[in-house]
Amino acid sequence: MIPPVRDLHLTSPDWLPDFVAWDRVYPGDEQRMSLAVGLARENVRRDTGGPFGAAVFVSDSGRVIAAGVNSVTRLLNSVLHAEIMALMMAESRLETYALGAPGAPACELVTSCDPCAMCLGAALWGGVGRIVTGASKEDATALGFDEGPVFPASWAYLEERGIAVRRGVLRAEAVAVLEYYRDSGGPIYNA
Amino acid sequence: MIPPVRDLHLTSPDWLPDFVAWDRVYPGDEQRMSLAVGLARENVRRDTGGPFGAAVFVSDSGRVIAAGVNSVTRLLNSVLHAEIMALMMAESRLETYALGAPGAPACELVTSCDPCAMCLGAALWGGVGRIVTGASKEDATALGFDEGPVFPASWAYLEERGIAVRRGVLRAEAVAVLEYYRDSGGPIYNA
Repeated sequence: MIPPVRDLHLTSPDWLPDFVAWDRVYPGDEQRMSLAVGLARENVRRDTGGPFGAAVFVSDSGRVIAAGVNSVTRLLNSVLHAEIMALMMAESRLETYALGAPGAPACELVTSCDPCAMCLGAALWGGVGRIVTGASKEDATALGFDEGPVFPASWAYLEERGIAVRRGVLRAEAVAVLEYYRDSGGPIYNA
Repeated sequence: MIPPVRDLHLTSPDWLPDFVAWDRVYPGDEQRMSLAVGLARENVRRDTGGPFGAAVFVSDSGRVIAAGVNSVTRLLNSVLHAEIMALMMAESRLETYALGAPGAPACELVTSCDPCAMCLGAALWGGVGRIVTGASKEDATALGFDEGPVFPASWAYLEERGIAVRRGVLRAEAVAVLEYYRDSGGPIYNA
């Protein structure tokens, strides 16, 4: 019998820590999205996963807490979308399972593409106060990716719980990364 | 500056590997759910997390591939619901990001409670062919847990993609674990 697995070791790609300017201030949505889209592009260029990047920022200061890229194929783990990686890394760094806990600074998730059903739920549980997205669900679907059961009511559910949402920031740049991935022959793992 | 986190080390509770009869056959839904509910109960009794357990089985043989319990508070990680742990462990053990890939045996996710929005999406991406649940979304909500944006259309979305669903197996036993957790004063982290 194969022994049951007990431990999972989840890593960022080797290039990621040096790709992010950890001591920089990212003042606005466009600068923050530029990092998320840059992560997505680099993930394709380095052949380390799907065309998606995300980062968690402190909303007021513009400091980046954590960054993530899609790691499904690299780590053979269907859960490891870019948003999941960024949220888990942010919680690990701040040593909390609730980023928006009372007394802690409000954080936001900036992602190069509208989150799938799993990641939309994960953003809610992670406690971010704001979500900013680049490419749309339709853009991802056009490439062949499935976003799962996300409905207008799903977004409304988050907004009713105090999460601010802005979509479509640097959309053209984000879509260009999706097309770069398609043209490079990357696998569509959620078909 | 706190150095950016690069690695995450995710473990099952120490008691879990010995709790599961890895070489046993679990022939039907009730036997499989009994394991999931037992995992949930033990997680409360051992004070290692929320009142939720899940396991991935090979549908035909009834062999258990992986098991998971809610690990949000233990590992300070809001993503680590029982279903997420079970799916990630199953994929790690089988070395695949698609449990239902062509040629591989069909697998199913058996969970002590209706999955939240995140876990419902994760089940879809994990590639299981069937989902079996115990307690209902309403049961979890009555305890104070939020299940997120899950709608009848969410379940329909999965069923349209070939995922079979059976809900309410051993529901009373699963609800008893929720009540056990409430009476023991466990934290409601997704309030």
